[in-house]
Amino acid sequence: MVRIYLDYAAATPVAPEVLRTMQPYFLEKFGNPGSLHSFGQAAQAAVDRARETIARALGAQFREIIFTGSATEANNLALRGATAAGMKRVIVSAVEHESVLETARSLKKAGVEVVELPVDKDGVVKLPALGKALIAGPALISILYANNETGTIQPIAKISKMVHAAGGILHTDAVQALQFLDCRGDTLGADLMTVSGHKIYGPKGVGALYVRGKGPGSRAKNHAHPTPYSLSPIIAGGGQEFGLRSGTENVPLIVGLAAAVEYIEKDKAKYARQIAAMKEQIVRGIKKIYPRAQLNGGKNSLPHIANVWIPGVLAQDLLIQLDLAGIAVSAGSACTARSSQPSHVLRAMGLSESRAKQSIRVSLGRPTTNAEATKLLKVLSSLRRQKAGNNFPSH
Amino acid sequence: MVRIYLDYAAATPVAPEVLRTMQPYFLEKFGNPGSLHSFGQAAQAAVDRARETIARALGAQFREIIFTGSATEANNLALRGATAAGMKRVIVSAVEHESVLETARSLKKAGVEVVELPVDKDGVVKLPALGKALIAGPALISILYANNETGTIQPIAKISKMVHAAGGILHTDAVQALQFLDCRGDTLGADLMTVSGHKIYGPKGVGALYVRGKGPGSRAKNHAHPTPYSLSPIIAGGGQEFGLRSGTENVPLIVGLAAAVEYIEKDKAKYARQIAAMKEQIVRGIKKIYPRAQLNGGKNSLPHIANVWIPGVLAQDLLIQLDLAGIAVSAGSACTARSSQPSHVLRAMGLSESRAKQSIRVSLGRPTTNAEATKLLKVLSSLRRQKAGNNFPSH
Repeated sequence: MVRIYLDYAAATPVAPEVLRTMQPYFLEKFGNPGSLHSFGQAAQAAVDRARETIARALGAQFREIIFTGSATEANNLALRGATAAGMKRVIVSAVEHESVLETARSLKKAGVEVVELPVDKDGVVKLPALGKALIAGPALISILYANNETGTIQPIAKISKMVHAAGGILHTDAVQALQFLDCRGDTLGADLMTVSGHKIYGPKGVGALYVRGKGPGSRAKNHAHPTPYSLSPIIAGGGQEFGLRSGTENVPLIVGLAAAVEYIEKDKAKYARQIAAMKEQIVRGIKKIYPRAQLNGGKNSLPHIANVWIPGVLAQDLLIQLDLAGIAVSAGSACTARSSQPSHVLRAMGLSESRAKQSIRVSLGRPTTNAEATKLLKVLSSLRRQKAGNNFPSH
Repeated sequence: MVRIYLDYAAATPVAPEVLRTMQPYFLEKFGNPGSLHSFGQAAQAAVDRARETIARALGAQFREIIFTGSATEANNLALRGATAAGMKRVIVSAVEHESVLETARSLKKAGVEVVELPVDKDGVVKLPALGKALIAGPALISILYANNETGTIQPIAKISKMVHAAGGILHTDAVQALQFLDCRGDTLGADLMTVSGHKIYGPKGVGALYVRGKGPGSRAKNHAHPTPYSLSPIIAGGGQEFGLRSGTENVPLIVGLAAAVEYIEKDKAKYARQIAAMKEQIVRGIKKIYPRAQLNGGKNSLPHIANVWIPGVLAQDLLIQLDLAGIAVSAGSACTARSSQPSHVLRAMGLSESRAKQSIRVSLGRPTTNAEATKLLKVLSSLRRQKAGNNFPSH
């Protein structure tokens, strides 16, 4: 069976050219970047180049990029790092990824004041609520740039102005946004930003945290990071990553993350258009099959994610039937797929529990073809007919 | 120039067969293990198999293996996880890796009582000091199985009896030991144990923490880990790794870690003998060239690490000269190579600062050949003659 993958928001394959770039660092250029000999220096040079590439793409300085083992770790570093360094308040939106929400919850248990901001029916943070929360004093604010379940884009540039006017620090999770939106630090105004490899055709197991610094610094490895605010590492040891994240640098994966950032920069606008057109085709097609179907989230969303409510159809059942037909879609995020709870994102948008459980996420990628979109609609249509057929006991 | 690598304790190349095993998980089997569709299930099955392989090698249960992004992270999880869950005391040896020592220091700043145990001239923990430290109350004890700079092996089985008799929890960093010693949980008696990929011909960026549980559990992904003591995650989010380490599982690297564990199990004794014989040859040869040279650390050490004091020769200078001749050795651990401080391990053994600065670490691996060992001695000998020659102003 030829399988069709429509779950690019959960994980992308590594692009062959990205893998080719990583390859030599497993076998030949395997040195520890901390070593002073030529094997180590070759590895260090590769990490330096990768850091430069990513810094350039994010409009950042060399030392403002901190490599981590995942976006989840980067999100934890932003929240735990700030609170460990003395920040007493954390403000998050109700539609954050679990790595932010769960971290905020554990910080709350540890005595940190945590405010969860409501969102409107499209999933956009209610700015008056943010304004109110900011009055109570300095805080770290964590709001994702674009949601992983609905694709809804937050007004980060506007939020950053509010946060900075109140003396706060803004963190944004740009994991899904990076491949489509402008994520340069100076445009967005974020102080901390998370990016990830395996959502942009790079490898799993690598992420980065942009940490706004005081300007260009030296490359001295063990020199402390010049953050204008305090951030403590959550993983201590050899002092790698300017003291903010210890552990031998994961050279092949770091090289892979940089190659993936370059990969998505190429033909960015072309793919955004192409993917948006296919999403439009799919949503229109689903509405033809299920006339009561509705898109969850507003118009201002990422081009690759369609979160669709199909009234009367349990998402869990539908995705199993689609999987049997060789098509992979999801019912929310992969991180919570095993939980029987309805999506916290859709619930926060004011949607009922039953609507949340009747919503599927179809997410497209660069390799997605029109033929795949058409096949999805064909299978959905045939499943719909079978179900209608089942309603006649004589069959 | 044909380069000779003798720094296997800093990083090993990935074994070609290990890389081959990882390969399909980058391109074809790229699913997110959290996804319920077949792409996700294939990835989850690979992670399950890897966990089983490593559990078997460590004499552990399936659920007792927690994958992390590095050994440094695993060490941080052991120490921070226990203290975050309420443990008020931490006991470490003075010769631990930076990831344990620095973590202990940051915990101390946060109010945890930290005791640093002295070692004898061979680098072995002084057991009476441990006994005394254990009297004061329950503690997490972290003592590495074998030292990364000297290879010195600690009497972990004996230590675990002392620790358990006092109601403590024992963590051991077995990163260097794993490829040569028996690291099965029941033999050693450790409650927590750290292993790493890139010291055993596996990839960088992956480690695991063995966490002794209450026995075999289900594979339910989000089910809490059944530890008989408390351990809190340091990275929160989707609840992967039985709630102890969130973040999308790094499938290719996890598969690679398991393949590396299988790789080092094969011909383990044969390679230990072969490597020990070459180390013997190298140490004897160095003593011929520098008659006053001495091995740092005692007889009971790992077969692949030779830490040698060469009186009158600055290690930093020697390793640059060797590097120019195409030979990579180190002057201590890679994590601290850029620091100008003398090795804390050698200093803790009572060696003078000048001796510590005149000591090099030569570490061998499975690919090391007799010809490479001979070449090292030849180059050392010629460097020695040049230096002697330089002492004659007429030259």
